[in-house]
Amino acid sequence: MAEPIEDFYAVIPAGGIGSRLWPLSRADAPKFLHDLTGSGRTLLRDTWDRLEPLAGRDRIAVVTGRAHRAAVEKELPGIPDRNVFLESEPRESTAAIGLAAAILSHREPDVVIGSFAADHVIRGTRTFEFAVQQAVAVARDGYVCTIGIQPSEPSVGFGYIQKGDELDVDGAPEATLVQSFVEKPDLDTAREYYADRSYLWNAGMFIARADVLLGEIAENEPSLYAGLMDLAEAWDDRDRRGPVVDRVWPTLRKIAIDYSVAEPAAARGRLAVVPGHFDWDDVGDFASLAKLNSGGRSEHLAILGEHARVLADTASGILVSQTHRVISVVGVKDIVIVDTDDALLVTTSEHAQRVKGVVDALKLTGRGDVL
Amino acid sequence: MAEPIEDFYAVIPAGGIGSRLWPLSRADAPKFLHDLTGSGRTLLRDTWDRLEPLAGRDRIAVVTGRAHRAAVEKELPGIPDRNVFLESEPRESTAAIGLAAAILSHREPDVVIGSFAADHVIRGTRTFEFAVQQAVAVARDGYVCTIGIQPSEPSVGFGYIQKGDELDVDGAPEATLVQSFVEKPDLDTAREYYADRSYLWNAGMFIARADVLLGEIAENEPSLYAGLMDLAEAWDDRDRRGPVVDRVWPTLRKIAIDYSVAEPAAARGRLAVVPGHFDWDDVGDFASLAKLNSGGRSEHLAILGEHARVLADTASGILVSQTHRVISVVGVKDIVIVDTDDALLVTTSEHAQRVKGVVDALKLTGRGDVL
Repeated sequence: MAEPIEDFYAVIPAGGIGSRLWPLSRADAPKFLHDLTGSGRTLLRDTWDRLEPLAGRDRIAVVTGRAHRAAVEKELPGIPDRNVFLESEPRESTAAIGLAAAILSHREPDVVIGSFAADHVIRGTRTFEFAVQQAVAVARDGYVCTIGIQPSEPSVGFGYIQKGDELDVDGAPEATLVQSFVEKPDLDTAREYYADRSYLWNAGMFIARADVLLGEIAENEPSLYAGLMDLAEAWDDRDRRGPVVDRVWPTLRKIAIDYSVAEPAAARGRLAVVPGHFDWDDVGDFASLAKLNSGGRSEHLAILGEHARVLADTASGILVSQTHRVISVVGVKDIVIVDTDDALLVTTSEHAQRVKGVVDALKLTGRGDVL
Repeated sequence: MAEPIEDFYAVIPAGGIGSRLWPLSRADAPKFLHDLTGSGRTLLRDTWDRLEPLAGRDRIAVVTGRAHRAAVEKELPGIPDRNVFLESEPRESTAAIGLAAAILSHREPDVVIGSFAADHVIRGTRTFEFAVQQAVAVARDGYVCTIGIQPSEPSVGFGYIQKGDELDVDGAPEATLVQSFVEKPDLDTAREYYADRSYLWNAGMFIARADVLLGEIAENEPSLYAGLMDLAEAWDDRDRRGPVVDRVWPTLRKIAIDYSVAEPAAARGRLAVVPGHFDWDDVGDFASLAKLNSGGRSEHLAILGEHARVLADTASGILVSQTHRVISVVGVKDIVIVDTDDALLVTTSEHAQRVKGVVDALKLTGRGDVL
């Protein structure tokens, strides 16, 4: 295993609930606290394990909600207290990643940070590490760098990054500027992108010197930047942190880092990208989860659940079992079944995106107890 | 309401589990103990209520397994002790109905009995009563009489009875002899039968003088008949019943009354039939249950369950909820979902008949705890 990268700090924003994975994902059991691959480990733990060789175990920070503190510390028993950054309420990715950048920059001015979501699935350790090493080299040159996934199929489920001019950075042979960001395309466009090879999936990974990242926020969101500075300056003082958080955090603008940093930086030629040649999935819904666990067999019923007692006959799709019940599935195709103690979901891969609507409807109809 | 029919005794064999309705029906919660129509009453209770005006509350006997005694008495609080005939183990319909015939004939030699399954659904009180009154008139003339259901569609799910020559019996204007029995037909044949009108569904209802019915058994199954006589003779003697049951019951041949009585009697011109113009269903599987509860709307998700908490969106089929869980069903057609505390079934109407195979497989794979 390689040595950790010097001056590098990994940041794991562990935020979103993953509404499209209800009733598996819940407010009190968000997506990153689940094992979605049958590995026996949560996505958060997998993310940590993937980053430890790159950053070192004492140089990985997690940004998460107060409600998840205990669960995060249980999953990551090695994490130092000072590396758990608690949000009093969710305020989107600029606030989360910006908080980490500000605190770490305050502690260590030259630090390069890399932000990696807690709830993505990645397979291919060496290619991941190679991509991060390149991105850090590019970041040291003053760019904000993202890792774009080299598409393995013409997906319509992800946004795309169009590569621009090549960069000449030592240790980053594949680095280019980002020409533009593209929203989720239709299938024909996705096929063009796939054939073209100069379009990569936007996986939301950002690597930058903390001061460079904060500079981008300062330029585009000055009052958000000022708030982050106030927080960072007080953070490591036990007595001052609480009052400042209470005063500042609720005022921070809710804005995704794509809009506060990535797109403006791309427009000014300050956003770079390196391709990631590893398997990646954000496991956005049950269709994606089914595919991820199918082992490539479309006629297969994938089963997730330690205690699953399943009798399946000519069934395909995915079954998530969180109870001890016997489950029999007969003659259904591309089915999605999620069996939990207090809620049951039955749908199909085709309708997987509609699960978010279910969650909204449950809220509206007073059944929020199961969310 | 009419007066009860003189000399008439109703018999309710409450036997079969209804394996095709697993996991709703169980060994300890057989089909007849369920409310399958949303009426708030079990099928057994509905059967009782339907027969009470015809027989009188003290003249309805139930033949059931020892294990179901308490449940039956709870459902039918008015039933006299002496009218609950307990089987020590199930030995098919000739033994069950023959036992009732033998006991009642011993008590009351001229009695006419009518046997009506505990787990069928019937709608149409007056037409049902008219059919039974006609059948009793025919039975008094010395025939075994069955009630055949006038088909409401070309069903391939039932056996058929072909009507023969008309009978001239006072009070039974529609009675005919039975020409023959026909096994479940293919769809083309079912369409012919439906158009023909001289074919009726075999609903397994038999009305006869008890001595006539026993005479048929004597002729076709003499040793079974002898056993029934031994049982009847000792039955009402508290001290003798137990030992005789223990000795005789396990020796009785397991044979359906269709083969021991109906078919031989038909062949000899001693089986009559009157048509039933009421809605009838034996609720043999979940496809049938879905249809029964759909209210005629094929795009409808029928829901059975007192405490059901369901959020359905573009779903059709049937959902049986026996738990308090929130159930969300999205974008599935003709689905069958049965949600119970220890078992969950997901299939489609098309595959409803395969549920029996699930039960067999559960037995074989050591999961009989949920059967």
